[in-house]
Amino acid sequence: MKAKVYVTIKQSVLDPQGVAVQGALHSLGFNEVESLRVGKYMELELGDVSQEAAGDRVKEMCEKLLANTVVEDYRYELEG
Amino acid sequence: MKAKVYVTIKQSVLDPQGVAVQGALHSLGFNEVESLRVGKYMELELGDVSQEAAGDRVKEMCEKLLANTVVEDYRYELEG
Repeated sequence: MKAKVYVTIKQSVLDPQGVAVQGALHSLGFNEVESLRVGKYMELELGDVSQEAAGDRVKEMCEKLLANTVVEDYRYELEG
Repeated sequence: MKAKVYVTIKQSVLDPQGVAVQGALHSLGFNEVESLRVGKYMELELGDVSQEAAGDRVKEMCEKLLANTVVEDYRYELEG
C-alpha cells in the first residue's frame, strides 16, 4: 500500500516561501504567475495493510507529525 | 489556469529528510512505514493562458527555478 500526502499552508495564513518563489519567477520573466503557494509532498510505502486501516493510520500520522494543523491543511491518497 | 507542480528527489539520491521523518514516525509507533520520501508541492495561479502555452511555461519554470534537475524530478498538472 502506497500513500501520497499533500500538506499545504491554509489559505488564510501568509506563505513567505511562496511569495519569494513568485518574486523569483517574476524576475525571470514569468509575469503570468499571479500567485504561488508552496507545500510539502510525501510518498509513504506502507506494509501489508488494508485500504481502510491505512487511511486511518495515515490520518493519524498527519495529525500527530506530518502536518501542523494549526496553520496547515493536509490531504492524502492511497494506492494499491 | 491553475498548475500543480510536484518536485521529488530522484530515486537514486539519498533523502535525509525522508529518513528523519520515517524515524520520527517509527518512534511514534507507526512501524508499518517502510519508506518515506519528502518532496515539494506548489500551486500556481496563472493568468489567462491557453492549456498548451501554460504547459510550456510551467515546464520552463521547473527547469529554470522550481526543480534542481540534477537531483530532482518534477511533474505538473494543469487545471481549468
